[in-house]
Amino acid sequence: MKIWPDWVRTYQKSWFSGDVVAGVIVTVMLIPQSLAYALLAGLPPEVGLYASILPIMAYALLGSSMTLAVGPVAVASLMTASALQPLASTGSADYVALAMLLSLLSGGMLLLFGALRLGFLAHFLSHPVISGFISGSAILIAAGQIKHLLGVKAGGSNVLETLLQLAQAVPRTNGVTLGIGAASVLFLVLARKSLAPWLVRVGATPKLADIASKLAPMLAVVVSTALVAALRWDQTAGVSIVGAVPQGLPGLAWPSVPFSAVGQLWLPALLISLVGFVESVSVAQSLALKRQQRIDPNRELLGLGAANVASALSGGFPVTGGFARSVVNFAAGANTPLAGVISAVLMGVVIAALTSLFHYLPHAVLAATIIVAVVSLIDVQTLREAWRYDKADAMSLLATAGGVVGWGVEVGILMGVALSLGTLVWRSSHPHIAVVGRVPGTEHFRNVARHQVVTEPGLIAVRVDESLYFANSNVLQDTIEALVLAHPETRHVLLVCSAVNQIDATALGTLTDLERSLTQRGIVLLLAEVKGPVLDRLEHTALGQQLQGRVFLSTHEGFVFAHQNAGAQRSRLEAVAASPA
Amino acid sequence: MKIWPDWVRTYQKSWFSGDVVAGVIVTVMLIPQSLAYALLAGLPPEVGLYASILPIMAYALLGSSMTLAVGPVAVASLMTASALQPLASTGSADYVALAMLLSLLSGGMLLLFGALRLGFLAHFLSHPVISGFISGSAILIAAGQIKHLLGVKAGGSNVLETLLQLAQAVPRTNGVTLGIGAASVLFLVLARKSLAPWLVRVGATPKLADIASKLAPMLAVVVSTALVAALRWDQTAGVSIVGAVPQGLPGLAWPSVPFSAVGQLWLPALLISLVGFVESVSVAQSLALKRQQRIDPNRELLGLGAANVASALSGGFPVTGGFARSVVNFAAGANTPLAGVISAVLMGVVIAALTSLFHYLPHAVLAATIIVAVVSLIDVQTLREAWRYDKADAMSLLATAGGVVGWGVEVGILMGVALSLGTLVWRSSHPHIAVVGRVPGTEHFRNVARHQVVTEPGLIAVRVDESLYFANSNVLQDTIEALVLAHPETRHVLLVCSAVNQIDATALGTLTDLERSLTQRGIVLLLAEVKGPVLDRLEHTALGQQLQGRVFLSTHEGFVFAHQNAGAQRSRLEAVAASPA
Repeated sequence: MKIWPDWVRTYQKSWFSGDVVAGVIVTVMLIPQSLAYALLAGLPPEVGLYASILPIMAYALLGSSMTLAVGPVAVASLMTASALQPLASTGSADYVALAMLLSLLSGGMLLLFGALRLGFLAHFLSHPVISGFISGSAILIAAGQIKHLLGVKAGGSNVLETLLQLAQAVPRTNGVTLGIGAASVLFLVLARKSLAPWLVRVGATPKLADIASKLAPMLAVVVSTALVAALRWDQTAGVSIVGAVPQGLPGLAWPSVPFSAVGQLWLPALLISLVGFVESVSVAQSLALKRQQRIDPNRELLGLGAANVASALSGGFPVTGGFARSVVNFAAGANTPLAGVISAVLMGVVIAALTSLFHYLPHAVLAATIIVAVVSLIDVQTLREAWRYDKADAMSLLATAGGVVGWGVEVGILMGVALSLGTLVWRSSHPHIAVVGRVPGTEHFRNVARHQVVTEPGLIAVRVDESLYFANSNVLQDTIEALVLAHPETRHVLLVCSAVNQIDATALGTLTDLERSLTQRGIVLLLAEVKGPVLDRLEHTALGQQLQGRVFLSTHEGFVFAHQNAGAQRSRLEAVAASPA
Repeated sequence: MKIWPDWVRTYQKSWFSGDVVAGVIVTVMLIPQSLAYALLAGLPPEVGLYASILPIMAYALLGSSMTLAVGPVAVASLMTASALQPLASTGSADYVALAMLLSLLSGGMLLLFGALRLGFLAHFLSHPVISGFISGSAILIAAGQIKHLLGVKAGGSNVLETLLQLAQAVPRTNGVTLGIGAASVLFLVLARKSLAPWLVRVGATPKLADIASKLAPMLAVVVSTALVAALRWDQTAGVSIVGAVPQGLPGLAWPSVPFSAVGQLWLPALLISLVGFVESVSVAQSLALKRQQRIDPNRELLGLGAANVASALSGGFPVTGGFARSVVNFAAGANTPLAGVISAVLMGVVIAALTSLFHYLPHAVLAATIIVAVVSLIDVQTLREAWRYDKADAMSLLATAGGVVGWGVEVGILMGVALSLGTLVWRSSHPHIAVVGRVPGTEHFRNVARHQVVTEPGLIAVRVDESLYFANSNVLQDTIEALVLAHPETRHVLLVCSAVNQIDATALGTLTDLERSLTQRGIVLLLAEVKGPVLDRLEHTALGQQLQGRVFLSTHEGFVFAHQNAGAQRSRLEAVAASPA
C-alpha cells in the first residue's frame, strides 16, 4: 500500500517554481470566487473560504489530474441553494449545517461510486444534456444576481418570476450600489475582452497577458472595498457589504442536523455528484490530453469524494473541479497538485489573519464577478452544431436548458436525462428495415431502394438494422406481414440478421408467432448471418427447432436455397399436374 | 363515413345461431364474474352488472375483434381497488363516483391514444413484464380474497401484511362460511380439472364438455344461494351475503367528484389503460389468428376507450377484454360482436327484473370464484422459459411480480417498465467490440478471437456491433486506446461500422477527440462500411473533413490502404535513413 501519491514520490525540483507561481495566481482568483460562490449558495462568506482549504488537499492526495483546481464552483453553488432553500432560511445555522450534510452525502456517494468503479455512470449524461444544463444554469444564476447589482430584495423560483420581481423592484434601486455594480461589470467585461490583447501590444507575452486578465476580479474587489471603506458608503448610501467575517481556521465537526434530512437531500446530493463529476472529468481530461497525461475516472471519483467529505467536516459546502481556475492553473505552469496545496496554505493564512480586509467588500462586486463568469458559460456554439448534426440532440439540449430556466436545476437535469434515454429507446423502437437484393455478379446484397440489385422471384429478403427486443420486434413483424400481403406470390422470407446483436424473450415470441403464421400460409422463413452468440441461444428454443436447416451463414446461401427450393416446389407441382389422375 | 361497422353491414344469416348460443353462455359466465369483480374492486354488486351492458355495446360498434368479450376483469378490478382505497372508504358513494371517474379517464386516454394512432405504445411493456405483472396480481388478489372464505375482516397493503392479519384472524373464523367457501373452491377446482374429461367419457363432445365446465361458477352460485335462503344462514350462522341489489337499468350520469381528483387518478388510469389494452390485444390477436382474421391495434384502442367511457357514464368501473370469457365466446361459436350485444341485452334483463335473486348469494362463493379464476393466471411456464433463454428477462419478470406482491400493482408495473428499459440501455451501453482479421484468401473479415484469420502488421481493425451514442462511445474509445497502448507498433486503426446505424452528437465528439489524439501519436484513423445515412451526416462535420479519403466502402479496401500506406511510410523512412546526412 502506497501512502503517498505518485507525484509526491517522484517529485522533481524543476517542477517547484511552476507549482509556486500557479498556486499564488490561483489563490488571487480563488479569494473573490470563494466569497462570491458562497453568496450564490446562500451561505455566509467564510463558508466559501473554508471550502477552499481542506478539499484541495484531499484531492491532491487521491485525484489523478495534475492540474485540476478543486473548490467552490458556480453550478454546484446554484444546486446547493436550490436544494436548501425549501428546507431552511438562507444563511441560518441550520442552512449551513444542511450545506455541510449535502457535501457529506455527495462526497460519500462519490467515494462509493469510486469504490464500486462506477465512473462509467457519468456517460449517461450526454454532451447536449450537460451543455444545456450548464447554459440554463448560467441564465438562472445571472438572473438571480441582478438584485445585488440594484441593491434590492427579490426572489423567485424560476427566471420569469425573478425578472418580474426585479421589474417591480426597479423603483427601489440603490443608485450607489448600481454604480459600483455596473462599473464592476463593465471593468470585468473589458478585462476579459480587451486587457489581454492590450497587454500583448505593450510587450507582455500572450500567456502572461492571459493570466493577468484573469486577476481583474481581485483588482475590482480591492478597489471597491477601499472606496466603500474610505467613504463609509455602507452607512451613508446604504450599500450592502459583506460585513464581519469570522477569523480563524475552521474546526473539524460533523454536521449537526437530524438524520431525517438525509431523506430530503439524497437526490440533490446525487445530482450534484453526477454533474460535478462529469464537469470535472471533462476539464481534467482536456487538460491532461494537452500534456499526454491520462485521467482515471475511478480515481477522480475518489479524489472528488474525499474533497467533499473534507469540505463537509471543515464547515464547507459541495465542491468540484472548476473550469476557469483549472485552465489558469494549467497556463500558469502548475506541474503537480502541489500548486493546489500552496493555494490551500495561502487560503489558510487569509482565513487565519486577513478576513477583516473583506469587511467593506460590497455584495454588488461579488455579484458582478458571478455574472461575468457565468455568462461566458452560455454555450450557443454547441447548440448550433447539435442542431446541424442531429435535431434530437439539439432538442434534448434545449429541453434541459428550458427545464432549468423554467423549473430549476433538478427538474432540468432529470428532464434532460429522461429525454436522452427516451430518444435512445424511441430510435431503437423504430428500426431501419431494408428489402435487399443481390449486387449483380457478386455475393453482396444491398437495399433495393438505394442500389441497382437483382431480386429472386417469390423471395422477400429483409435486413433489420437493430437488435430485436420488446419495443421493436412487432415493427419487424408488421413490415414482413405487409410485404407478404403486397406480394402474394411469396414462397420464402429471408431475414438477414447481420445487425442483430440480441434477441430478447419478447422478440423471440414475436418471431415464433411470425414463423407459425407464415408456415400456415405455405411460406418458409429463412434466417441468414445470425451472429454466434444469438445462434447459440436460439438453438434450444422452439423456434430454433423449427428453423433447423433453414439458418444460413451468408445471405447468398439463403438466396441459393430459396431458388432451389422454389424450383423443387415447381417440379413437384408440375409432377402432380402431369401425373395421371 | 360509415355509421355501422363492417360486421353489421355484411351480416350473414348463417352466423346468427352461433352468436346467440355464445351470447347466452357468456351471460351465464358473466353474471357471477360481474358480481365477484365488483366485490374485488370494493364496489357494490350492481356496479359490476352495470359495467357489463353498455361497454359491450360500445366495443361492438368500434372494436376490431369478432370474439373479444369486454367487461369487468380481475386485474383491472384489483388496480381499481388499489387506486381508490387511499382516496375514499370502500363502497361509499364517493368511492363509486371515483371509480366512474377512473373509468372515464381511462376511456378518454384510450380514445386519445387511438386518435393519435399510438397503438405501438403497448409494445413498451415487454412479455416478461406483463407475465410477471399478471402472476403477481393473481397472488395479490387470491391473498386478498381469503378473508371472505373465512368470514373475517382483514386488510393489508401487501401480501405479507394480508397473510399476517389473516393469521391473527383465524380464531374468529365463521365455520359455516368456511364450509361454503371451501366446498365452492373444491367444486370449482374439480369442475375445472375433471368435469370436462368426465363429460367426454359419458358421451359429450370435447367442445361442449369444455364449455359446460366453464358454467360451474353459475351452478355454485345457484346452489349456495338457495341453501342460504332456505336455511337463513345469514341470520342463524352470520354468513355474509350480497344483500339487496338495486333493481333497474342504470341511468346515464357524469361522475359527481371534484375536478381535483383527476390529479390523483391520472396515473392509475394510465396504467389500467395500458395493461388492459395490452392484455386485450394479445387475447384478441391470438383468437383472430386461429380464424385468419386481423386485429387493428388502433381500432382496439377506440373500442376499449368507448367501452370505458360508456362504463363510466352508466355507473360502471374500468373494463377491458377478458381472457376466460373471450375464449368461451370463441369456442361457443361467436361469429361477430352480435354475441356480445346479446349478452348485454340479457344482462339488461337481469338488472331490470332479477336482482332480487342475488340477495342471499354468499360472499364466500364469489371469493371462491375469484380465487380459482386467478390462480390459473399464475404463469410459471413463461418464467421457466425466460430463465432458460435470457436471465435479464427472467429478472424483469420476477422483479415485476415481486414488486406487485410486495408494494402493489402500481409500483410493480413501474418497476417492471423501468427494469426492462434499464436492461435495454445497459446492454447498448456495453457494446460487443471485436478485433477482426481477414479470412485467408477472401474479402471476408471475422473476429480474431473466434476464427482463424490473418491480420495486417501495424493495423488494428475493430468492429463495433452497436450504434454509437452517449452511453457507449467512451467504451469504444477506451477499448481502442487500450489496444493501441498494447500494440506500440500500430500505425492504422480501422473502425468497421457495419453495425453502426446512428452516431449521436456525443459519440461524434468522442470520435473527434479519438481521431485527434491518435493523429498526435502518428496513428491514422480509417473508417469502413459506414452506412449511407450515417455518412451523409458525417460529411458536414469537422470529423468528416478530417477523415476525407480515409472512409472505405469495404473492410477489404481499408486493409489494402493500410498495407500500401505503411509500405509508403517504410520507404520514406528508409529513404531518409539512406540519404547522405
